[in-house]
Amino acid sequence: MIEQDTISTPAGLRIIPLGGLGEIGLNMALFEYGDDIIVVDCGLMFPEPHMLGIDFVIPDIAYLRERADRVRGIFLTHGHEDHIGALPFVLQEISPPLYGTALTLGFVREKLKEFDLDGYVDLEVVKPRETVAAGTFEVEFIRVSHSIVDGCALAIRTPEGVVIHTGDFKIDHTPVDGELTDLATFARYGTEGVLALMADSTNVEREGFTLSERVVGEAFDEIFPRCPGRIIVAAFSSNIQRVQQAVDAAARCGRKVLLNGRSMVANVAIARQLGYLRIPDGILTDLKELPRLPKEEVCMITTGSQGEPMSSLARIAMDDHKQIKLEQGDTVILSSRFIPGNEKTISDLINHLYRRGAEVYHEKVSEVHVSGHASQEELKLILNLVKPRFFIPVHGEYRHLVKHARLAQMVGVPAERCLLAVNGDVISFRDERGGIADRVETGRVFIDGKGIGDVGEVVLKDRKHLSEDGMVVVIIAINQYTGEVIYGPDVVSRGFVFEDESQEYLDETKKIVLDTLAGMTIEARTDWGEVKQEVRRVLRRFFNKTIERRPVILPLILDM
Amino acid sequence: MIEQDTISTPAGLRIIPLGGLGEIGLNMALFEYGDDIIVVDCGLMFPEPHMLGIDFVIPDIAYLRERADRVRGIFLTHGHEDHIGALPFVLQEISPPLYGTALTLGFVREKLKEFDLDGYVDLEVVKPRETVAAGTFEVEFIRVSHSIVDGCALAIRTPEGVVIHTGDFKIDHTPVDGELTDLATFARYGTEGVLALMADSTNVEREGFTLSERVVGEAFDEIFPRCPGRIIVAAFSSNIQRVQQAVDAAARCGRKVLLNGRSMVANVAIARQLGYLRIPDGILTDLKELPRLPKEEVCMITTGSQGEPMSSLARIAMDDHKQIKLEQGDTVILSSRFIPGNEKTISDLINHLYRRGAEVYHEKVSEVHVSGHASQEELKLILNLVKPRFFIPVHGEYRHLVKHARLAQMVGVPAERCLLAVNGDVISFRDERGGIADRVETGRVFIDGKGIGDVGEVVLKDRKHLSEDGMVVVIIAINQYTGEVIYGPDVVSRGFVFEDESQEYLDETKKIVLDTLAGMTIEARTDWGEVKQEVRRVLRRFFNKTIERRPVILPLILDM
Repeated sequence: MIEQDTISTPAGLRIIPLGGLGEIGLNMALFEYGDDIIVVDCGLMFPEPHMLGIDFVIPDIAYLRERADRVRGIFLTHGHEDHIGALPFVLQEISPPLYGTALTLGFVREKLKEFDLDGYVDLEVVKPRETVAAGTFEVEFIRVSHSIVDGCALAIRTPEGVVIHTGDFKIDHTPVDGELTDLATFARYGTEGVLALMADSTNVEREGFTLSERVVGEAFDEIFPRCPGRIIVAAFSSNIQRVQQAVDAAARCGRKVLLNGRSMVANVAIARQLGYLRIPDGILTDLKELPRLPKEEVCMITTGSQGEPMSSLARIAMDDHKQIKLEQGDTVILSSRFIPGNEKTISDLINHLYRRGAEVYHEKVSEVHVSGHASQEELKLILNLVKPRFFIPVHGEYRHLVKHARLAQMVGVPAERCLLAVNGDVISFRDERGGIADRVETGRVFIDGKGIGDVGEVVLKDRKHLSEDGMVVVIIAINQYTGEVIYGPDVVSRGFVFEDESQEYLDETKKIVLDTLAGMTIEARTDWGEVKQEVRRVLRRFFNKTIERRPVILPLILDM
Repeated sequence: MIEQDTISTPAGLRIIPLGGLGEIGLNMALFEYGDDIIVVDCGLMFPEPHMLGIDFVIPDIAYLRERADRVRGIFLTHGHEDHIGALPFVLQEISPPLYGTALTLGFVREKLKEFDLDGYVDLEVVKPRETVAAGTFEVEFIRVSHSIVDGCALAIRTPEGVVIHTGDFKIDHTPVDGELTDLATFARYGTEGVLALMADSTNVEREGFTLSERVVGEAFDEIFPRCPGRIIVAAFSSNIQRVQQAVDAAARCGRKVLLNGRSMVANVAIARQLGYLRIPDGILTDLKELPRLPKEEVCMITTGSQGEPMSSLARIAMDDHKQIKLEQGDTVILSSRFIPGNEKTISDLINHLYRRGAEVYHEKVSEVHVSGHASQEELKLILNLVKPRFFIPVHGEYRHLVKHARLAQMVGVPAERCLLAVNGDVISFRDERGGIADRVETGRVFIDGKGIGDVGEVVLKDRKHLSEDGMVVVIIAINQYTGEVIYGPDVVSRGFVFEDESQEYLDETKKIVLDTLAGMTIEARTDWGEVKQEVRRVLRRFFNKTIERRPVILPLILDM
């Protein structure tokens, strides 16, 4: 731990994105002025395929850790995992109050309970158009519509001017919960003058406007009455409006609603308790009733829309579920996005559902999903309402940030005031001037089980190597004075070749090791480093030549 | 090897798909009548992500192997890997003549050379509208357009009637090479009467018509003149029409063409030699000239469009290429499909190209790629021209086959004559009746390096397990009479935890193993099976409790 007083107090306003710029996920940005820091969002990312065995990825908060006593609050725009998911890890190191709307904090509380952190954290519920003071900052929450209810943008008033952070948003003129994106407040700040706008870049490649969430309800109303058998709707459990629409469509067809999936049950309970979800009396039915319900009265709402192998939807598709066996006439609606990287898994899921005889609707063939992010025309609208002096595209892969900066230039922000920052850049503002002034240490921290950050590049590289051609362990005991082989070589492999059929091959491997040792001088043979290197070299060549594989070769020389 | 004469001669016509039904890839079907068998296509599949370390997947040809002497020929519809890629492996077991068009066999010959099989195989070039007799079968080749030139459908005349196999096709009314899908021949067979149609289901989910290949040339002509710097076009090297259009567009802008990628160089050479590709004099330039060429005169045509990590396009994107360093003003055109499963890798590639300052065009934002497969209206057209008695959807995932069968019903094929077969089903026809009558052994064979089929489920499961949490090897030498620990325990890990920082943790692991051994009776301690099981059990619990990981635990007990 660095001594706090050795850390200088910077001049002007500094905005430092720690995650979310150049990637979708782990959104986190900090605002620093004098001795005050506030944080916007604290998200995680689900691992990419090459991050073998990793459970979550969170931003590296080294910069924040060293300034823990200056953090005046964490402001949460909404309750998605890529905005709140890193909290249980980050709150083990810093413990400022958390500010967010009721549902956002409802989801946060549930998460903190899982990690036994509930009760240790100060959760402050804020309503849209309310303002919170935190050190020198004043933060107003501005309602936005998104694929989760109770989302907000933030207007952050600083001594250098107002910065608006959109959070994740779209402009839905007919939202299911009636909560419109508060364009008037954006306009008010625009009239007053805004130093900088940080805006969601996710859908910057899409032309036009994003469709209203209500379109999905209309699709449900078209599909549901045509379904002769059971209906299964798979959606993200945080998408409360989506759940509401599935419930309403079920009610209109006289179907019971059964909830499936741990997070679906938990989030529906939270949303109902806080008044964000209205389920008509008598319609909600326990999953245990499923076998007794007539098929045409069943509407299951479930998680597992990404084809997660352990989810119950995947088990249903593989005909490996206790309570439900799909049949001809049943219908599955995947009411969610094909998240990039999951396309193949979801496609496999759909094929299995067809094998079971079910009909499947998904976003590629039907309007059973709409995005929660603004498309080009909405992004232009916000830019024109807010009229920021500076523009900082956030929440996107690198190409999204580039294209969002171009869009801002199209509506009149000068190129030199479109700041294309990446994680760790220090965006500095002083006296109406601004730019990327510095960099701080940043990066990704891998979480594997309970371990935080102990899985680094070396471990991942080893896992990748192991995954490709497996591992061969060679055990030899050598007398450290005479160089005589006392034991072995024993050869054991995993993930390399069929072990029961390849005894001959492993015997040949042993012989090669013995021959190699025999060809070495006594000096070399009593130098374990030398022996290991030679065994590796010879076997690498042997495996490559005979079967073109490159397993991890682990020679173990026993001191005896 | 089963004795040939124990294998019965079946009655009627039997069609047995060995691959490609219920999956995209490894297309292979056999036709059997009396003692004669012919094979249509012989493709491979590239491995899915869960097939760790696998290079290729090919169909299991057990059924064919046992009837090797009855195989009268392998008929190839076109030269894509999923139709010819398994040949080098299959031809090691059976060696009938191969029939195909000139370019198809040109690509096959190149492939056989790689495996030192060239010269051992009888390659018979066939032209469209020519007919080949093979045993009791007569096979006419019918020109079709596709994303490779010189593709054909097959009309297979059998004693039970004519079966038409479309191969991969689209109906391109303005093909770049002028070779139209030969609708007249399809119609002629339709008029005569067709027993069964087997048709490409890839694009059955797409409404309307697939765009003409020429659209891509128009997109090139629009983009090329606007590019201030270098142009890099990434495409599949087998897509000769695409290469032709890139060459033509380059020529019109006064750019030199540089070919990059081993298969691009090879396939262009084959196509030029056979007259399928016309490159104007003086335009083709060696890659070594690249550093000396003015930027606005460069058009590189390269492989690597799927973001393959070792391809030179990936290295260019990572700024790790010897001859080329991208700059602002350079343009990359990904002129190919985002193959399902590769989306994330391609998306990462695009982001890196933007980081280098390049502009990127791809199929999601521009018409720089069109599909080679027929959409719904084209599929209906072929069905109506051929008017088959039976319909068998092929070349598709399971949902595609289901939807293609429905499409056939829409145009009038009775439901009971739409045969929804999967790999290994025996589709039997006799006296105008037909149906799925039987099943034969089938499956997928994994190729890893030189090994054919020696990587099975156990090895893959081990690789997956290794990839997730790595491996912990525990070495102990125990006196087999006294149960005394003579050596160790030594603990070595790979892909598990940071080794340099976790000595303490591994020491604790050793202590637990010692304590476990101390707590065992002498009888148990001298029973290696018992010791291994106990060490595994105790460590599994320890790792799970302390860091929630589940590595492969490999206890090695040395006999001493």
